[in-house]
Amino acid sequence: MKEIKIVLKERDMPRKWYNLAADLPGIIEPALAPDGRPITPDMLAKVFPMNLIEQEASLKRWIDIPEEVLKILLRWRPAPLRRAVYLEEYLKTPARIYYKDESLSPAGSHKPNTAVAQAWYNKEFGIKKLTTETGAGQWGSALAFACNIIGLECKVYMVRISFDQKPLRKIMMHVWGARCVASPSNETSSGRAILRKMPNTPGSLGMAISEAVEEAVRDKTGKTRYSLGSVLNHVLLHQTIMGLESKKQLSLAGEKKPDIIIGCVGGGSNFAGLAFPFLYDKIHGDKIEIIPVEPTACPTMTRGPFAYDYGDTAGMTPLLPMFTLGHNFVPEPIHAGGLRYHGMAPLVSHAIRDGLLSPRAYDQVKCYNSAFIWAKTEGTIPAPETSHAIACAIEEAIKAKKEGKKKVILFSYSGHGLMDLTGYEKFLSGKLSKYHLSEKDLRASLESIKKFPKIRIRKKA
Amino acid sequence: MKEIKIVLKERDMPRKWYNLAADLPGIIEPALAPDGRPITPDMLAKVFPMNLIEQEASLKRWIDIPEEVLKILLRWRPAPLRRAVYLEEYLKTPARIYYKDESLSPAGSHKPNTAVAQAWYNKEFGIKKLTTETGAGQWGSALAFACNIIGLECKVYMVRISFDQKPLRKIMMHVWGARCVASPSNETSSGRAILRKMPNTPGSLGMAISEAVEEAVRDKTGKTRYSLGSVLNHVLLHQTIMGLESKKQLSLAGEKKPDIIIGCVGGGSNFAGLAFPFLYDKIHGDKIEIIPVEPTACPTMTRGPFAYDYGDTAGMTPLLPMFTLGHNFVPEPIHAGGLRYHGMAPLVSHAIRDGLLSPRAYDQVKCYNSAFIWAKTEGTIPAPETSHAIACAIEEAIKAKKEGKKKVILFSYSGHGLMDLTGYEKFLSGKLSKYHLSEKDLRASLESIKKFPKIRIRKKA
Repeated sequence: MKEIKIVLKERDMPRKWYNLAADLPGIIEPALAPDGRPITPDMLAKVFPMNLIEQEASLKRWIDIPEEVLKILLRWRPAPLRRAVYLEEYLKTPARIYYKDESLSPAGSHKPNTAVAQAWYNKEFGIKKLTTETGAGQWGSALAFACNIIGLECKVYMVRISFDQKPLRKIMMHVWGARCVASPSNETSSGRAILRKMPNTPGSLGMAISEAVEEAVRDKTGKTRYSLGSVLNHVLLHQTIMGLESKKQLSLAGEKKPDIIIGCVGGGSNFAGLAFPFLYDKIHGDKIEIIPVEPTACPTMTRGPFAYDYGDTAGMTPLLPMFTLGHNFVPEPIHAGGLRYHGMAPLVSHAIRDGLLSPRAYDQVKCYNSAFIWAKTEGTIPAPETSHAIACAIEEAIKAKKEGKKKVILFSYSGHGLMDLTGYEKFLSGKLSKYHLSEKDLRASLESIKKFPKIRIRKKA
Repeated sequence: MKEIKIVLKERDMPRKWYNLAADLPGIIEPALAPDGRPITPDMLAKVFPMNLIEQEASLKRWIDIPEEVLKILLRWRPAPLRRAVYLEEYLKTPARIYYKDESLSPAGSHKPNTAVAQAWYNKEFGIKKLTTETGAGQWGSALAFACNIIGLECKVYMVRISFDQKPLRKIMMHVWGARCVASPSNETSSGRAILRKMPNTPGSLGMAISEAVEEAVRDKTGKTRYSLGSVLNHVLLHQTIMGLESKKQLSLAGEKKPDIIIGCVGGGSNFAGLAFPFLYDKIHGDKIEIIPVEPTACPTMTRGPFAYDYGDTAGMTPLLPMFTLGHNFVPEPIHAGGLRYHGMAPLVSHAIRDGLLSPRAYDQVKCYNSAFIWAKTEGTIPAPETSHAIACAIEEAIKAKKEGKKKVILFSYSGHGLMDLTGYEKFLSGKLSKYHLSEKDLRASLESIKKFPKIRIRKKA
């Protein structure tokens, strides 16, 4: 009987994270302060601990995973690499489809990989409390889990509409000892100001970020910091354990290299976690097609410009060099809440600029359709975000069949969908909208970034 | 770094199930027909397929797992055996606590182990459709999953109050292609009769069983059968893969034998799955304490008699020899919906009668308290049912500490609690009731079984 799960031994776990910044062929543009000058570490010191700020700016290729972080990751890692043999049979494809299964973590997704690392570095730096925001709740519950294990207080501002519609995620955070409040809240001045103007607002990630950052910065004891679940370099770095494990596992499965790598993309951390270690090989000559997949409702990579923009809606962050739809962009209410972000991680953005990635956008009807094919064949129920990667894997497997090529496809199964099932019911009842961003709305949204410095194409010295 | 997950290779999976009926020291009492005579296979032929009826009556010690069933189980099995080192540290116990993690199956519990086997045997027998009932939804979703994989139609009658309160479980079943309806429904004559009398009833497992059996039996083509998720011998048999895997894994971990085995008990299949293979060793001389744990709200083993009773509320099943609280018993609404069953699997009941088990009952406040200790230390969120086993493991680990004994404790982590979180919120708000069955209510409930034949203690020839 063929082994369909490729299990790595605990002792074969990667001991270092991979930092793509060391290998990107083009120049990395700096984040900018409001005055247009590159941001300095000191400017971020009230928001993040200095050890993570140093990691954010590092150009070292390999960064040691602290032994204590590794020990916590071992509670559920190494994550299995699985071969989707039933999907292959169903598609009658000659392709071999592998997926990295991140759904088995305590919070049900890849998010704890960085939550644990961030909580640990903050604790190490003497911090007592972390604040963050969460939309659908995946990130908030992952950070609650990590703070619980490491011994930090945790406060999560959850977008009000999700807070009301997804009580289970909120309870998860409470079980892990975090305080989760609906945002906008009465607990911050920015929250109160919003509530005065819009007492019935459903909230947004932008508002929640403002509140979380405010609570971190205002703590006079200096023992509170803010934590972000994607976008930033150090967050992507922590996720590379996914790709590093996968490399060893593919080799155990007898594969020399993957031909195609796929991940869904919101802020970019799940995709980068799987893809960056293979990007190293691509930069050094391997032929690999690497496909980040986003929703057509929020087509940052496929239709946005590479430009400076705020990371949040309220404009509290530095200006980041990235693909963006404009910081005021409000995507349609697709079910993949984790993919509704206007920007894109700067490292992923730079890799696109350097021609290393082949971004693609799918509508959610196509994605749910693929999720049903998955549930029918492989038997598990993926998160709505993950269904974007599955849709692409299916498309590529069918293409391989037409071409008669035995391609090796690897994608990230970033999370399970057990707590996010309402989209499935809508699909079944035929009530699911596709959502394509109109050209007019895109142009209007991009007005907001016209005032920012432009990015010139520069060559490495 | 010490390995805390003991992973079995796929090729080392057990190839046979273990049948305790071959080794029980005492005589096994037969199930009885309404006329008081032992049931014959023919009487069950409209409800179950003949191959499962034969398995139900088998006295063979080892029964081959069909290769096709094994192949499907391999999608998520072998299930990891884990060592709860963080709980051990927290309790400062010299005990080594192991747990069999059944929460990683596609449906989130041990239930698919038998769902897959039952679906396969039915398909093999030419059946096209399975009907069943479900309370909280764990069993219904497991059977939906299995029928989807095997290619059978599936119809689930879900107790109305759960149907309304737990929409996620219902959607899971729909994703896997099953039809899930609220019971009582208008789709059966028994459902319609109940609705005429009690149009606003919240439903019960008893009512749902009646509807599911009726739909199976009335199919004139003979291609529909009924499927049960616990209690019966063949269901327990299919679950013994849990204990058989655990034996190999304990040995890989360097343990000669467990000193204590623990499982929570509703109908008995999860407990039996882990414990029966070790019961074989106990019967043959090993010193092992084996503890089935039930809720004080439904104290079947600790306070009920060993007597003949119906397996369902409506009295449609044969009379089963078992520990029971009376078939009309309605337990208080504890959150561990899977433990709210009036009876007990006959094989587990016989093992209690033979003095092989040490049943225990806990109230749910104690159990949730233990679940929070678990979430705090081990980091995952257990199902309310599973928390009963955790409470017992903690109690035994503390006892081992007092006695200064390095005991080996093994328990079943039967499922995750991600879709059953409301009890946690109630516990946190201090609104959770303990629920102890009163002596008066117990006596009243047992009135209903006085009319049935008594069980005489008989010795094996």
